[in-house]
Amino acid sequence: MKIQLITIGNELLNGKIRDKNAFWLARFCYEHNIELSKNHIIPDCPQAFAEAMRQAWSAGDLIVTSGGLGPTKDDLTKELAGSFFKKELKENKSALEIAIKNYSKSKREYDPALEYSKIPEDFEAIYNAAGYAPGLSYQSEQKMLAVLPGVPSEFSRMFREEIYPKANSYLKSEEENFQKHIIVKTRGVPEAKIFNNLCPGLWEKLEAYGQVSSLPHVQGVDIGVFAQAKSQEELLLKEEKVIELIQATELNEHIWHIGNESLEEVIIQRAKEKKITIGFAESCTGGLLASRITDISGSSSVFLGSVIAYHNDVKMGVLKVKEDTLKNHGAVSSETAFEMATGAKAALGADIVVTTTGIAGPGGATPGKPVGTIGIGFCHKDDSSGELFHFPEQERVDMKFLFSQAALFKMLELIDSLN
Amino acid sequence: MKIQLITIGNELLNGKIRDKNAFWLARFCYEHNIELSKNHIIPDCPQAFAEAMRQAWSAGDLIVTSGGLGPTKDDLTKELAGSFFKKELKENKSALEIAIKNYSKSKREYDPALEYSKIPEDFEAIYNAAGYAPGLSYQSEQKMLAVLPGVPSEFSRMFREEIYPKANSYLKSEEENFQKHIIVKTRGVPEAKIFNNLCPGLWEKLEAYGQVSSLPHVQGVDIGVFAQAKSQEELLLKEEKVIELIQATELNEHIWHIGNESLEEVIIQRAKEKKITIGFAESCTGGLLASRITDISGSSSVFLGSVIAYHNDVKMGVLKVKEDTLKNHGAVSSETAFEMATGAKAALGADIVVTTTGIAGPGGATPGKPVGTIGIGFCHKDDSSGELFHFPEQERVDMKFLFSQAALFKMLELIDSLN
Repeated sequence: MKIQLITIGNELLNGKIRDKNAFWLARFCYEHNIELSKNHIIPDCPQAFAEAMRQAWSAGDLIVTSGGLGPTKDDLTKELAGSFFKKELKENKSALEIAIKNYSKSKREYDPALEYSKIPEDFEAIYNAAGYAPGLSYQSEQKMLAVLPGVPSEFSRMFREEIYPKANSYLKSEEENFQKHIIVKTRGVPEAKIFNNLCPGLWEKLEAYGQVSSLPHVQGVDIGVFAQAKSQEELLLKEEKVIELIQATELNEHIWHIGNESLEEVIIQRAKEKKITIGFAESCTGGLLASRITDISGSSSVFLGSVIAYHNDVKMGVLKVKEDTLKNHGAVSSETAFEMATGAKAALGADIVVTTTGIAGPGGATPGKPVGTIGIGFCHKDDSSGELFHFPEQERVDMKFLFSQAALFKMLELIDSLN
Repeated sequence: MKIQLITIGNELLNGKIRDKNAFWLARFCYEHNIELSKNHIIPDCPQAFAEAMRQAWSAGDLIVTSGGLGPTKDDLTKELAGSFFKKELKENKSALEIAIKNYSKSKREYDPALEYSKIPEDFEAIYNAAGYAPGLSYQSEQKMLAVLPGVPSEFSRMFREEIYPKANSYLKSEEENFQKHIIVKTRGVPEAKIFNNLCPGLWEKLEAYGQVSSLPHVQGVDIGVFAQAKSQEELLLKEEKVIELIQATELNEHIWHIGNESLEEVIIQRAKEKKITIGFAESCTGGLLASRITDISGSSSVFLGSVIAYHNDVKMGVLKVKEDTLKNHGAVSSETAFEMATGAKAALGADIVVTTTGIAGPGGATPGKPVGTIGIGFCHKDDSSGELFHFPEQERVDMKFLFSQAALFKMLELIDSLN
């Protein structure tokens, strides 16, 4: 299946918002072994739509549009998609039902002036579980068009729950297969080094079991093998072999997880298993550690809290960092990180606490402490300490993420080290 | 000047990396009043390049490519750009000089096997201040092609310092236009209601001053008018008229900002102006409030800190919420939100504190308190209180964002209310 994505909206081409749907779809395609062959990002403009649609329809099997489905005048996708296939807008019963149902869910009444019930003839209305307006699909010439809203939560949910199964059965090839994307997550070795230096020949060996891929992240690389088999047993055998092959290399000590769970999910899962509670004290990550952990449902069973001590007064007041420590070593130091950890452990009462204090930039650098410097501290029942690290300078938001990644890996390491 | 951008690389379409150049260029174009009329994101594939190039060259004045300029086998852009104009690769003296200079800067020797000195005939070599390989430009038919590397630091610097000035003088039109994207940010009224019920006819009236757009956000709608004029005075007049028109409607009381700054930026800016310090205590937003604020450079001048009190023990221990309050009213209640606020004000010492305690789901609902329920509390010198709100259920991460948006609007309201 070849997908062509058309992303529509002036706001995407004037820098007002950063598109999320293309990246989400690219990841989804990667995980499901689908080819995303082009993304057309175009303004709210009929000519641009017609031209992109002409190209996409000739080059793809599944053409997905994102955006322009709302109720205002610049939302033209429904009309334009219809007129591309010379289909007039008509009242559609299931489109009306979806709109009424979605409005009644949030205790509001559907206003017929919105015209959500009018869709192009021969198009199908698609349920929107996360918003109001129905999406659309159209099938012809062994190809399929999906017209989806631009709001990321609506787009991703409708694609995953409605469009993908539908396209899969409409565009399906003859033979049904058992499939799995086997993923082994590593950290500490760059992508190029893994396959060129550490494990030469590994890629080729893995290829015997499926399509191999390597997905670099901040501070880590996921190795993936998309395996297919005629039976569940054969698939399990392939999975075992793939994992064995990777574990037999020097990469073994760099593996932190087998499976597709995120770092946050793995931390919560392992802390749960060991009945360990966790907490943070954050300066430079500014709440991002706590927010990443609380993005995961069920985090409340292990995560107690975090103290965001942005100002030194809060470091001293809530976390009991000594004024002398701040004066003599600075707020960004292993010493401050350490004292934040002992203070936060006392305040939060968590079994393990990890702390961050660093310079996310663009300002704030001092001699010897450039942007990218971070002190990471920790404290648990047997041990506590602080250490200073230097990462390459990046934009502020990326810097915060890199800092949070380093701190979460420290947390995972500490959970793994405790009995 | 109309720009068409072609972004090249398999890694952009399989979710391996998130493209940064398109967003950077979109912002640059917006700030310099240039129209970015399409972004083609394509894989490393000669056919895809030829097709995108054909469309871009016919639709744009300045065509910019990003990526595929490196030394490896999948880097084909130089050859493909040349063959599009039927130009053979030839040795070029200034390309060679750029390569030698850039290698000597990092004390390495240029390896002629890299062939950076070969560029298509009649193309010009462009200096690369942030990397090694020269970029390329080509001018013909009153249009210009710029071939740039995909590395964000190289792409942005070469575009800003080399390509933009070059294109500006080559493509200059007869009549200079003054342009501005006028943006009015509102909250509390859904998009459809604004133009259908509250301000019928507003859209049409605004259209007299430029291209109108409406961009819905969580809990708000931005209304935009892209205005053009022959002089700065005329442009200012149009801006005044647009703002007057909107302020003359019932939407006026729903305006929270005129301009393109984010909610976080506006909060920090207004707190700075009033010399007010801020802080939070967060349960259900789990650090997201603090993280959103600290994403903004300069936040440290007004933001002191936040207490993430996920567990009730932390609410009682750090924030001094009474055990009775938690027992009698529950953690998710206006009473708890209120006590969190007075406790956090004491702990953090901020002038204004806003707090959140709610149910982000999918679990955790109790009778009368479904997912989407949130207590928001606040405390400043003159007043403190707590209130319970109900929002429609969404996915956990979206729920957290909606909660954070409501709390940040509360913070903005409080800052505006203080002298």
